Amino acid sequence: MKKYKLVSREYHAADTVVDVAGVKIGGGSLAVMAGPCAVESHAQLMEAARAVSQAGAKFLRGGAFKPRTSPYDFQGLAGKGLKMLREAGDAYGLKVVTEAVDASFIPLVSQYADVLQIGARNMQNFQLLKAAGRVDMPVLLKRGLASTIEEWLNAAEYIASEGNSRIIMCERGIRTYETFTRNTLDLSAVAAIKELSHLPVIVDPSHGTGRWEMVRPMASAAIAAGADGLIIEVHPNPAEALSDGPQSLTPKNFTRLMHEVRLMAKARKAFLEDEGGWI
Amino acid sequence: MKKYKLVSREYHAADTVVDVAGVKIGGGSLAVMAGPCAVESHAQLMEAARAVSQAGAKFLRGGAFKPRTSPYDFQGLAGKGLKMLREAGDAYGLKVVTEAVDASFIPLVSQYADVLQIGARNMQNFQLLKAAGRVDMPVLLKRGLASTIEEWLNAAEYIASEGNSRIIMCERGIRTYETFTRNTLDLSAVAAIKELSHLPVIVDPSHGTGRWEMVRPMASAAIAAGADGLIIEVHPNPAEALSDGPQSLTPKNFTRLMHEVRLMAKARKAFLEDEGGWI
Amino acid sequence: MKKYKLVSREYHAADTVVDVAGVKIGGGSLAVMAGPCAVESHAQLMEAARAVSQAGAKFLRGGAFKPRTSPYDFQGLAGKGLKMLREAGDAYGLKVVTEAVDASFIPLVSQYADVLQIGARNMQNFQLLKAAGRVDMPVLLKRGLASTIEEWLNAAEYIASEGNSRIIMCERGIRTYETFTRNTLDLSAVAAIKELSHLPVIVDPSHGTGRWEMVRPMASAAIAAGADGLIIEVHPNPAEALSDGPQSLTPKNFTRLMHEVRLMAKARKAFLEDEGGWI
Amino acid sequence: MKKYKLVSREYHAADTVVDVAGVKIGGGSLAVMAGPCAVESHAQLMEAARAVSQAGAKFLRGGAFKPRTSPYDFQGLAGKGLKMLREAGDAYGLKVVTEAVDASFIPLVSQYADVLQIGARNMQNFQLLKAAGRVDMPVLLKRGLASTIEEWLNAAEYIASEGNSRIIMCERGIRTYETFTRNTLDLSAVAAIKELSHLPVIVDPSHGTGRWEMVRPMASAAIAAGADGLIIEVHPNPAEALSDGPQSLTPKNFTRLMHEVRLMAKARKAFLEDEGGWI
Repeated sequence: MKKYKLVSREYHAADTVVDVAGVKIGGGSLAVMAGPCAVESHAQLMEAARAVSQAGAKFLRGGAFKPRTSPYDFQGLAGKGLKMLREAGDAYGLKVVTEAVDASFIPLVSQYADVLQIGARNMQNFQLLKAAGRVDMPVLLKRGLASTIEEWLNAAEYIASEGNSRIIMCERGIRTYETFTRNTLDLSAVAAIKELSHLPVIVDPSHGTGRWEMVRPMASAAIAAGADGLIIEVHPNPAEALSDGPQSLTPKNFTRLMHEVRLMAKARKAFLEDEGGWI
Repeated sequence: MKKYKLVSREYHAADTVVDVAGVKIGGGSLAVMAGPCAVESHAQLMEAARAVSQAGAKFLRGGAFKPRTSPYDFQGLAGKGLKMLREAGDAYGLKVVTEAVDASFIPLVSQYADVLQIGARNMQNFQLLKAAGRVDMPVLLKRGLASTIEEWLNAAEYIASEGNSRIIMCERGIRTYETFTRNTLDLSAVAAIKELSHLPVIVDPSHGTGRWEMVRPMASAAIAAGADGLIIEVHPNPAEALSDGPQSLTPKNFTRLMHEVRLMAKARKAFLEDEGGWI
Repeated sequence: MKKYKLVSREYHAADTVVDVAGVKIGGGSLAVMAGPCAVESHAQLMEAARAVSQAGAKFLRGGAFKPRTSPYDFQGLAGKGLKMLREAGDAYGLKVVTEAVDASFIPLVSQYADVLQIGARNMQNFQLLKAAGRVDMPVLLKRGLASTIEEWLNAAEYIASEGNSRIIMCERGIRTYETFTRNTLDLSAVAAIKELSHLPVIVDPSHGTGRWEMVRPMASAAIAAGADGLIIEVHPNPAEALSDGPQSLTPKNFTRLMHEVRLMAKARKAFLEDEGGWI
Repeated sequence: MKKYKLVSREYHAADTVVDVAGVKIGGGSLAVMAGPCAVESHAQLMEAARAVSQAGAKFLRGGAFKPRTSPYDFQGLAGKGLKMLREAGDAYGLKVVTEAVDASFIPLVSQYADVLQIGARNMQNFQLLKAAGRVDMPVLLKRGLASTIEEWLNAAEYIASEGNSRIIMCERGIRTYETFTRNTLDLSAVAAIKELSHLPVIVDPSHGTGRWEMVRPMASAAIAAGADGLIIEVHPNPAEALSDGPQSLTPKNFTRLMHEVRLMAKARKAFLEDEGGWI
């Protein structure tokens, strides 16, 4: 199909670097967003933020509104959660990334967050995309569970066509027949976005695999594949998490992950400097 | 996972029959919704409505707000389209089925429509589902492109848990590796819904196959599988349709389809009377 | 891709009718193959054959060599099973359908069987396909678990290009993300084969769904969609089956299925006579 | 399901290192197999072998028997191709990896090859697996196009249960709805195999992506994810390849790939030494 234009590499040849209140995403930097799936309590969030910051990441992620498959699952702390995110972000010098699940929530979310996240289930919620295109803040656009790369770029185009081109793409795994992992992390999508678009792309190995022990190797693989960053679920106590415990890292393992991905990013950089690009 | 309760067969053993302003869906009747993908003009819609009515269907379907993959595709006539739908429905004695693509559109849509449709891309737009649960009108809930049967039933539970149990499930094809058809129509989902839930279920062979020449055999198959009805794209002139032309039937072929599905429904009924149920 | 020629509708416009020792498959007849997944014992097979015959089916199916995922599962009775199949078929006037899992087994299988089955896992075992093309007996070609319709037709072309055009296609479900059913039965493949090829096509709702309670509705749906027949797992005592018990019908339920599919076939025939074809 | 035993990590805790005539696969080494999809001519193969050797790889891959979707596509040079492979391997000090497409071909292939490859389409050709289990040579077992990780390990168990435990697993992409890439390379399968099994695992980014420009980033990602090696299509002149041209690297780009993956392997090694393992 291909109708997207503004987000295409032909339209804009150079890599877009998105500036989030002074912290850059894209252009060779390594952007890591980390934190709990859901904001559960003040104590939980402050502890997570401290761990994230100490390991060297620059972004705090956390959900205040949780899109859950069943109406009987924990739905998030809403406005209270947003305030906690801002407080924790400020306390540890972290930029805040959080999701708006409906166009009507954008004004509220934009008061507290530095990056507006659009979740996988909403990748083709076109009202939400258009509203995100009219707000003055960076947008993290997750790939839909069963979206093609072309559909994903067209979703980005909905945002860009309304005037906002500060878009960060996020691969988070697609739905396949394989059941060992929660989703199938499609790292070739990183290379595809780099080829087709100028937008930065990060990877979510937590949702992509659904298994904490796979998060580290997939995070390294993502960086090796050319990703501009990562979004990782970190919880002070994964066993007691209200959602996504099995895929959350402890602070200790997150620190190790940061160590490894830095080594990988360095290796990749060394190669690119030696070779002066690919073809 | 299974958390749904109100929509489950255990909670309510008898088949639910949804009454749409006097026309019944479920309980042995054959409900057929037909019309163009998108409302394009007054003339197009009136001609489609006439054909739908003459062939014996009782519901007019048509989109006023079109969720399109690209922002540069035709997005629908919006409020003007809704008015036309009501007018055409009234002119030919048809109930009107149309989609709301965002919770904020429900008040407007409910002014004109008899059935509120929630599209495949919005099956997990939980704000929309909750809003649909608070309105007093029947809801047609399409299965998501890559949703499991359990996720679909949980989406219905979001509606029911807010107080609205007049829900009609709609299988419309799932996303698989096969590319000959637009989607893979999963008719076993009909049998699954009948087993797990008391809600009526209809089938959309137009989106399910994406090819008009396959619509008739798949419509018959749906009825044979136990579906309570169909939703079919009919256009006075498919070659000039602004969307979904390749999967739209001409009025003449729709008339043939109605003839065949009636024969199938009769055969199924004869069997059920002979056998007195399945086990 | 499309390279197939001999099996295409353009090459041969009229429907092919495959003659199996006097019983016809294709051309408006309703061919039903039934029996246990695996031949387990003389008593089991004779009882199954009697039930199959009494319900009015003309073909006995059963596996002597079982391709099983684990090497520690029951692998079949081999040559002994083949002899039992022939004996049971002869005792009840049934044609025998059984699988060869390797080209080297064809001489043995052809001594005992009337129809040579090529299983889903072997749909692209090209040595086996070529060997099946050089033998003088009808071949039942199951669609691979994740094969496209085009790949399936090309597999048939391997057989036809070696000289054997007595091929029966068999849709048996494809692998998708849905886990409620064992596979996703793709009934639109029936319509696709009818459009693209002159070969007869039957459907296997037992493997297609993996759940016995879904076999009857899917069998009816298959016939309504235009299938030339069915292949159904029937076991005297499904609870004790060595393989595929959950998807096997009791003789009693198989008899009901035969009653319903005959009604459906009659309804379909009535429509075709009224309308004189589709377009 | 899980029935596999001999290939499981519980059965044998330490990593298996497969010795191929003195060259090791597994245990921290970086094994790279490269060469053309199909052996086409003496000149083509010698040129490819020289390039492979010069870039520092130790294994020559090439197909003498080609399993092709259509019977009208190039089917390989057969025995002549095998001889050429041996000659080219010997000329450049490379071990030879090639496929047997049927159990009956194993005696011939084992005369010329150092590693017996079982292709994706044959992953559940159980006769072939059993025959491979009775031969005294390492086996490269590609994952089936739509096989789960459990089915793949059970296929390996078929080989091991016959006495041959020199098995190398190979992830080569799975079939999903995405069409931008030929398959979806599932790198999380690398981490999964490392967790569930003691066998070495390599990755095929050429078939996994189907696009040469994606081969390098996916190769690096594979090594970062923990793979023990790679299998890469290299052709002296991809534009004229009889098969898989679009996914084949030129010798020059293959040399670059080798440079990058070595840097990645070094970074991974540094991390593992620093951390002393994962948990």
